[in-house]
Amino acid sequence: MAAVKIRPAQPEDCEDIMRMIKELAEYEKLPEQVKNTAEGLRRDGFEQSSPFFKCLVAEFGDEGRRGGGPAVVGYALSYFTYSTWKGRALYLEDLYVMPEHRGKGIGSRLLAAVAELSASLGCSHLQLAVLDWNSPAIAFYLSRGARDLSQEEGWRIFRFLPDDLKRVASGPDTSDG
Amino acid sequence: MAAVKIRPAQPEDCEDIMRMIKELAEYEKLPEQVKNTAEGLRRDGFEQSSPFFKCLVAEFGDEGRRGGGPAVVGYALSYFTYSTWKGRALYLEDLYVMPEHRGKGIGSRLLAAVAELSASLGCSHLQLAVLDWNSPAIAFYLSRGARDLSQEEGWRIFRFLPDDLKRVASGPDTSDG
Repeated sequence: MAAVKIRPAQPEDCEDIMRMIKELAEYEKLPEQVKNTAEGLRRDGFEQSSPFFKCLVAEFGDEGRRGGGPAVVGYALSYFTYSTWKGRALYLEDLYVMPEHRGKGIGSRLLAAVAELSASLGCSHLQLAVLDWNSPAIAFYLSRGARDLSQEEGWRIFRFLPDDLKRVASGPDTSDG
Repeated sequence: MAAVKIRPAQPEDCEDIMRMIKELAEYEKLPEQVKNTAEGLRRDGFEQSSPFFKCLVAEFGDEGRRGGGPAVVGYALSYFTYSTWKGRALYLEDLYVMPEHRGKGIGSRLLAAVAELSASLGCSHLQLAVLDWNSPAIAFYLSRGARDLSQEEGWRIFRFLPDDLKRVASGPDTSDG
Protein backbone atom coordinates (compact mmCIF):
# COMPACT_ATOMS: atom_id res chain seq x y z
CA MET A 1 0.00 0.00 0.00
CA ALA A 2 2.87 2.38 0.78
CA ALA A 3 4.04 2.14 -2.82
CA VAL A 4 0.89 3.86 -4.11
CA LYS A 5 0.75 7.62 -4.15
CA ILE A 6 -2.49 9.64 -4.43
CA ARG A 7 -1.84 12.92 -6.25
CA PRO A 8 -3.68 15.55 -8.35
CA ALA A 9 -3.88 14.53 -12.00
CA GLN A 10 -1.74 16.36 -14.56
CA PRO A 11 -2.49 16.91 -18.27
CA GLU A 12 -0.12 14.02 -19.09
CA ASP A 13 -2.39 11.64 -17.15
CA CYS A 14 -5.36 12.13 -19.49
CA GLU A 15 -4.61 9.07 -21.64
CA ASP A 16 -4.46 6.90 -18.51
CA ILE A 17 -7.64 8.46 -17.12
CA MET A 18 -9.49 7.99 -20.42
CA ARG A 19 -8.37 4.35 -20.53
CA MET A 20 -9.84 3.80 -17.04
CA ILE A 21 -13.04 5.76 -17.85
CA LYS A 22 -13.63 3.23 -20.64
CA GLU A 23 -12.86 0.30 -18.32
CA LEU A 24 -15.41 1.63 -15.81
CA ALA A 25 -18.05 2.13 -18.52
CA GLU A 26 -17.48 -1.49 -19.64
CA TYR A 27 -17.98 -2.63 -16.06
CA GLU A 28 -21.14 -0.52 -15.81
CA LYS A 29 -22.39 -2.15 -19.04
CA LEU A 30 -22.82 1.19 -20.78
CA PRO A 31 -19.64 1.43 -22.93
CA GLU A 32 -21.51 2.82 -25.96
CA GLN A 33 -22.17 6.02 -23.98
CA VAL A 34 -18.48 7.02 -23.90
CA LYS A 35 -17.90 9.85 -26.40
CA ASN A 36 -15.20 11.72 -24.51
CA THR A 37 -11.48 11.63 -25.41
CA ALA A 38 -8.16 12.28 -23.67
CA GLU A 39 -8.02 15.56 -25.61
CA GLY A 40 -11.47 16.51 -24.29
CA LEU A 41 -10.34 15.76 -20.73
CA ARG A 42 -7.24 17.91 -21.19
CA ARG A 43 -9.26 20.81 -22.58
CA ASP A 44 -12.04 20.64 -19.96
CA GLY A 45 -9.91 19.88 -16.91
CA PHE A 46 -6.61 21.63 -17.52
CA GLU A 47 -6.94 24.37 -20.13
CA GLN A 48 -9.82 26.43 -18.69
CA SER A 49 -9.65 29.38 -16.33
CA SER A 50 -12.31 27.45 -14.36
CA PRO A 51 -11.70 23.74 -15.00
CA PHE A 52 -14.87 21.64 -15.25
CA PHE A 53 -13.54 19.00 -12.83
CA LYS A 54 -10.85 18.04 -10.35
CA CYS A 55 -9.15 14.69 -10.70
CA LEU A 56 -6.95 12.63 -8.37
CA VAL A 57 -4.97 9.61 -9.52
CA ALA A 58 -3.45 6.63 -7.71
CA GLU A 59 0.04 5.89 -9.00
CA PHE A 60 2.51 3.14 -8.24
CA GLY A 61 6.10 4.16 -7.76
CA ASP A 62 8.75 2.14 -9.63
CA GLU A 63 9.33 -0.15 -6.67
CA GLY A 64 5.64 -1.14 -6.54
CA ARG A 65 5.22 -2.07 -10.21
CA ARG A 66 5.53 -5.64 -11.27
CA GLY A 67 4.89 -7.18 -14.64
CA GLY A 68 4.96 -3.93 -16.57
CA GLY A 69 1.33 -2.83 -16.12
CA PRO A 70 0.35 0.86 -16.04
CA ALA A 71 1.66 2.99 -13.17
CA VAL A 72 -1.62 4.91 -12.84
CA VAL A 73 -4.15 2.35 -11.56
CA GLY A 74 -7.04 4.40 -10.18
CA TYR A 75 -8.70 7.81 -10.30
CA ALA A 76 -11.37 9.90 -8.61
CA LEU A 77 -13.00 12.68 -10.61
CA SER A 78 -15.22 15.27 -8.94
CA TYR A 79 -16.66 18.76 -9.46
CA PHE A 80 -18.58 21.46 -7.63
CA THR A 81 -22.35 21.39 -7.60
CA TYR A 82 -24.72 23.77 -5.80
CA SER A 83 -27.49 22.93 -3.39
CA THR A 84 -30.02 25.77 -3.12
CA TRP A 85 -30.62 24.45 0.40
CA LYS A 86 -27.04 24.08 1.61
CA GLY A 87 -24.72 25.89 -0.79
CA ARG A 88 -21.67 24.54 -2.57
CA ALA A 89 -21.18 20.79 -2.61
CA LEU A 90 -18.86 18.29 -4.26
CA TYR A 91 -20.03 15.57 -6.63
CA LEU A 92 -17.99 12.41 -7.11
CA GLU A 93 -18.57 11.47 -10.74
CA ASP A 94 -16.22 8.48 -10.85
CA LEU A 95 -14.08 6.53 -8.41
CA TYR A 96 -12.27 3.61 -9.98
CA VAL A 97 -9.47 1.17 -9.16
CA MET A 98 -8.29 -1.37 -11.74
CA PRO A 99 -9.58 -4.86 -10.84
CA GLU A 100 -6.10 -6.34 -10.36
CA HIS A 101 -5.27 -3.68 -7.76
CA ARG A 102 -8.40 -3.93 -5.63
CA GLY A 103 -8.25 -5.07 -2.02
CA LYS A 104 -5.16 -2.96 -1.35
CA GLY A 105 -7.00 0.01 0.16
CA ILE A 106 -6.46 2.20 -2.91
CA GLY A 107 -10.18 3.01 -3.27
CA SER A 108 -10.35 3.94 0.40
CA ARG A 109 -7.37 6.24 0.02
CA LEU A 110 -8.86 7.89 -3.07
CA LEU A 111 -12.16 8.40 -1.23
CA ALA A 112 -10.31 9.81 1.80
CA ALA A 113 -8.50 12.28 -0.47
CA VAL A 114 -11.83 13.34 -2.04
CA ALA A 115 -13.33 13.80 1.45
CA GLU A 116 -10.37 16.01 2.40
CA LEU A 117 -10.82 18.01 -0.79
CA SER A 118 -14.52 18.43 -0.05
CA ALA A 119 -13.80 19.76 3.45
CA SER A 120 -10.99 22.05 2.30
CA LEU A 121 -13.28 23.57 -0.36
CA GLY A 122 -16.03 24.30 2.18
CA CYS A 123 -18.52 21.86 0.69
CA SER A 124 -21.72 20.99 2.54
CA HIS A 125 -21.69 17.37 1.38
CA LEU A 126 -20.32 14.89 -1.12
CA GLN A 127 -22.78 13.23 -3.45
CA LEU A 128 -22.58 10.44 -6.02
CA ALA A 129 -24.72 7.99 -8.01
CA VAL A 130 -24.35 4.22 -8.16
CA LEU A 131 -26.11 1.67 -10.37
CA ASP A 132 -28.56 -0.36 -8.30
CA TRP A 133 -27.02 -3.72 -9.28
CA ASN A 134 -23.48 -2.63 -8.37
CA SER A 135 -23.51 -4.17 -4.88
CA PRO A 136 -19.73 -3.93 -4.26
CA ALA A 137 -19.87 -0.16 -4.83
CA ILE A 138 -23.03 0.24 -2.73
CA ALA A 139 -21.44 -1.77 0.11
CA PHE A 140 -18.24 0.29 -0.19
CA TYR A 141 -20.03 3.64 0.17
CA LEU A 142 -22.54 2.49 2.82
CA SER A 143 -19.75 1.02 4.96
CA ARG A 144 -18.07 4.43 4.94
CA GLY A 145 -21.21 6.20 6.15
CA ALA A 146 -22.92 7.34 2.94
CA ARG A 147 -26.70 7.63 3.03
CA ASP A 148 -28.86 6.23 0.23
CA LEU A 149 -30.90 9.32 -0.67
CA SER A 150 -32.92 7.55 -3.36
CA GLN A 151 -34.13 5.09 -0.75
CA GLU A 152 -34.49 7.54 2.17
CA GLU A 153 -36.04 10.46 0.33
CA GLY A 154 -37.10 9.00 -3.02
CA TRP A 155 -34.96 10.96 -5.49
CA ARG A 156 -35.05 9.85 -9.13
CA ILE A 157 -32.74 11.05 -11.89
CA PHE A 158 -34.10 12.42 -15.19
CA ARG A 159 -32.17 13.48 -18.27
CA PHE A 160 -32.90 15.47 -21.43
CA LEU A 161 -30.76 14.49 -24.42
CA PRO A 162 -29.80 17.06 -27.11
CA ASP A 163 -32.73 16.31 -29.44
CA ASP A 164 -35.21 16.70 -26.58
CA LEU A 165 -33.51 19.93 -25.56
CA LYS A 166 -33.86 21.35 -29.06
CA ARG A 167 -37.57 20.55 -29.02
CA VAL A 168 -38.01 22.04 -25.55
CA ALA A 169 -36.07 25.19 -26.45
CA SER A 170 -37.83 25.78 -29.75
CA GLY A 171 -41.34 26.13 -28.52
CA PRO A 172 -42.97 25.68 -25.14
CA ASP A 173 -46.60 24.73 -25.39
CA THR A 174 -49.16 26.40 -23.17
CA SER A 175 -50.07 23.39 -21.08
CA ASP A 176 -49.73 23.30 -17.32
CA GLY A 177 -46.42 24.25 -15.84
CA MET B 1 -48.46 34.97 -20.48
CA ALA B 2 -47.08 37.90 -22.47
CA ALA B 3 -46.83 39.91 -19.27
CA VAL B 4 -44.23 37.52 -17.82
CA LYS B 5 -40.59 38.02 -18.71
CA ILE B 6 -37.89 35.36 -18.32
CA ARG B 7 -34.53 37.00 -17.57
CA PRO B 8 -31.18 36.23 -15.89
CA ALA B 9 -31.34 36.80 -12.14
CA GLN B 10 -29.56 39.83 -10.62
CA PRO B 11 -28.09 40.15 -7.12
CA GLU B 12 -31.20 42.12 -6.09
CA ASP B 13 -33.36 39.06 -6.83
CA CYS B 14 -31.74 36.90 -4.14
CA GLU B 15 -34.38 37.66 -1.47
CA ASP B 16 -37.12 36.63 -3.91
CA ILE B 17 -35.20 33.52 -4.96
CA MET B 18 -34.54 32.52 -1.35
CA ARG B 19 -38.24 32.98 -0.54
CA MET B 20 -39.15 30.61 -3.38
CA ILE B 21 -36.39 28.11 -2.45
CA LYS B 22 -38.08 27.85 0.96
CA GLU B 23 -41.52 27.48 -0.64
CA LEU B 24 -40.21 24.65 -2.82
CA ALA B 25 -38.58 22.91 0.17
CA GLU B 26 -41.90 23.13 2.05
CA TYR B 27 -43.64 21.53 -0.94
CA GLU B 28 -40.94 18.84 -1.07
CA LYS B 29 -41.55 18.20 2.66
CA LEU B 30 -37.90 18.80 3.54
CA PRO B 31 -37.96 22.42 4.83
CA GLU B 32 -35.56 21.66 7.70
CA GLN B 33 -32.79 21.07 5.18
CA VAL B 34 -32.69 24.71 4.06
CA LYS B 35 -29.61 26.38 5.58
CA ASN B 36 -28.83 28.80 2.75
CA THR B 37 -29.58 32.53 2.85
CA ALA B 38 -30.08 35.36 0.34
CA GLU B 39 -26.60 36.56 1.31
CA GLY B 40 -25.18 33.11 0.54
CA LEU B 41 -26.88 33.11 -2.86
CA ARG B 42 -25.45 36.56 -3.63
CA ARG B 43 -21.94 35.47 -2.64
CA ASP B 44 -22.03 32.14 -4.49
CA GLY B 45 -23.87 33.26 -7.61
CA PHE B 46 -22.82 36.85 -8.19
CA GLU B 47 -19.60 37.68 -6.35
CA GLN B 48 -17.29 34.94 -7.64
CA SER B 49 -15.02 34.98 -10.65
CA SER B 50 -16.66 31.61 -11.47
CA PRO B 51 -20.17 31.72 -10.04
CA PHE B 52 -21.40 28.42 -8.60
CA PHE B 53 -24.71 28.61 -10.48
CA LYS B 54 -26.77 30.37 -13.15
CA CYS B 55 -30.28 31.50 -12.29
CA LEU B 56 -33.20 32.63 -14.43
CA VAL B 57 -36.29 34.29 -12.99
CA ALA B 58 -39.85 34.78 -14.25
CA GLU B 59 -41.09 38.28 -13.56
CA PHE B 60 -44.44 40.02 -14.08
CA GLY B 61 -44.35 43.49 -15.55
CA ASP B 62 -46.49 46.12 -13.80
CA GLU B 63 -49.41 45.56 -16.13
CA GLY B 64 -49.52 41.87 -15.26
CA ARG B 65 -49.55 42.22 -11.48
CA ARG B 66 -52.81 42.17 -9.63
CA GLY B 67 -53.44 42.15 -5.91
CA GLY B 68 -49.95 43.25 -4.91
CA GLY B 69 -48.19 39.86 -4.88
CA PRO B 70 -44.48 39.55 -5.69
CA ALA B 71 -43.34 40.41 -9.22
CA VAL B 72 -40.84 37.53 -9.33
CA VAL B 73 -42.96 34.37 -9.35
CA GLY B 74 -40.65 31.61 -10.59
CA TYR B 75 -37.01 30.64 -11.00
CA ALA B 76 -34.76 28.01 -12.58
CA LEU B 77 -31.31 27.45 -11.08
CA SER B 78 -28.70 25.36 -12.86
CA TYR B 79 -24.95 24.71 -12.94
CA PHE B 80 -22.33 22.88 -14.97
CA THR B 81 -21.54 19.27 -14.19
CA TYR B 82 -19.12 16.98 -16.01
CA SER B 83 -19.78 13.59 -17.49
CA THR B 84 -16.57 11.59 -17.95
CA TRP B 85 -18.44 9.89 -20.82
CA LYS B 86 -19.85 12.95 -22.59
CA GLY B 87 -18.13 16.06 -21.29
CA ARG B 88 -19.74 19.18 -19.89
CA ALA B 89 -23.41 19.00 -18.98
CA LEU B 90 -25.97 21.21 -17.27
CA TYR B 91 -27.80 20.23 -14.10
CA LEU B 92 -31.18 21.76 -13.27
CA GLU B 93 -31.18 21.98 -9.48
CA ASP B 94 -34.54 23.75 -9.09
CA LEU B 95 -37.40 24.83 -11.36
CA TYR B 96 -40.26 26.46 -9.49
CA VAL B 97 -43.38 28.49 -10.23
CA MET B 98 -45.53 29.85 -7.38
CA PRO B 99 -48.75 27.79 -7.07
CA GLU B 100 -51.05 30.73 -7.86
CA HIS B 101 -49.24 31.29 -11.16
CA ARG B 102 -49.22 27.72 -12.47
CA GLY B 103 -51.12 26.74 -15.61
CA LYS B 104 -49.93 29.87 -17.44
CA GLY B 105 -47.01 28.26 -19.26
CA ILE B 106 -44.39 29.91 -17.04
CA GLY B 107 -42.71 26.60 -16.11
CA SER B 108 -42.55 25.65 -19.79
CA ARG B 109 -40.94 28.97 -20.64
CA LEU B 110 -38.39 28.63 -17.82
CA LEU B 111 -37.55 25.10 -19.01
CA ALA B 112 -37.25 26.33 -22.62
CA ALA B 113 -34.85 29.05 -21.47
CA VAL B 114 -32.75 26.46 -19.57
CA ALA B 115 -32.70 24.23 -22.67
CA GLU B 116 -31.46 27.18 -24.75
CA LEU B 117 -28.80 27.90 -22.14
CA SER B 118 -27.71 24.28 -22.19
CA ALA B 119 -27.34 24.30 -25.99
CA SER B 120 -25.56 27.65 -26.07
CA LEU B 121 -23.05 26.43 -23.47
CA GLY B 122 -22.25 23.29 -25.47
CA CYS B 123 -23.69 20.87 -22.92
CA SER B 124 -24.17 17.20 -23.80
CA HIS B 125 -27.37 16.91 -21.77
CA LEU B 126 -29.54 18.43 -19.05
CA GLN B 127 -30.06 16.40 -15.91
CA LEU B 128 -32.24 16.79 -12.82
CA ALA B 129 -33.66 14.85 -9.87
CA VAL B 130 -37.31 14.60 -8.83
CA LEU B 131 -38.89 13.07 -5.71
CA ASP B 132 -40.70 9.86 -6.62
CA TRP B 133 -44.05 11.00 -5.15
CA ASN B 134 -43.99 14.31 -7.05
CA SER B 135 -46.18 13.12 -9.92
CA PRO B 136 -46.94 16.59 -11.37
CA ALA B 137 -43.19 17.25 -11.77
CA ILE B 138 -42.54 13.77 -13.20
CA ALA B 139 -45.40 14.21 -15.70
CA PHE B 140 -44.11 17.68 -16.60
CA TYR B 141 -40.59 16.45 -17.44
CA LEU B 142 -41.66 13.20 -19.13
CA SER B 143 -44.15 15.06 -21.36
CA ARG B 144 -41.27 17.23 -22.56
CA GLY B 145 -39.14 14.25 -23.48
CA ALA B 146 -36.99 13.63 -20.40
CA ARG B 147 -35.87 10.06 -19.76
CA ASP B 148 -36.15 8.49 -16.32
CA LEU B 149 -32.55 7.31 -15.83
CA SER B 150 -33.21 5.79 -12.42
CA GLN B 151 -35.81 3.55 -13.99
CA GLU B 152 -34.01 2.87 -17.30
CA GLU B 153 -30.48 2.38 -16.00
CA GLY B 154 -30.94 1.99 -12.25
CA TRP B 155 -29.04 4.98 -10.86
CA ARG B 156 -29.32 5.63 -7.12
CA ILE B 157 -28.11 8.74 -5.32
CA PHE B 158 -25.82 8.54 -2.28
CA ARG B 159 -24.60 11.34 -0.04
CA PHE B 160 -21.88 11.80 2.58
CA LEU B 161 -22.68 14.44 5.18
CA PRO B 162 -19.89 16.48 6.86
CA ASP B 163 -19.45 14.18 9.88
CA ASP B 164 -19.11 11.15 7.61
CA LEU B 165 -16.63 13.05 5.45
CA LYS B 166 -14.48 13.86 8.47
CA ARG B 167 -14.42 10.19 9.41
CA VAL B 168 -13.62 9.12 5.85
CA ALA B 169 -10.87 11.72 5.49
CA SER B 170 -9.23 11.01 8.84
CA GLY B 171 -8.39 7.39 8.31
CA PRO B 172 -9.13 4.91 5.59
CA ASP B 173 -9.24 1.36 6.81
CA THR B 174 -7.48 -1.37 4.89
CA SER B 175 -10.56 -3.33 3.86
CA ASP B 176 -11.48 -3.99 0.26
CA GLY B 177 -11.59 -1.01 -2.06
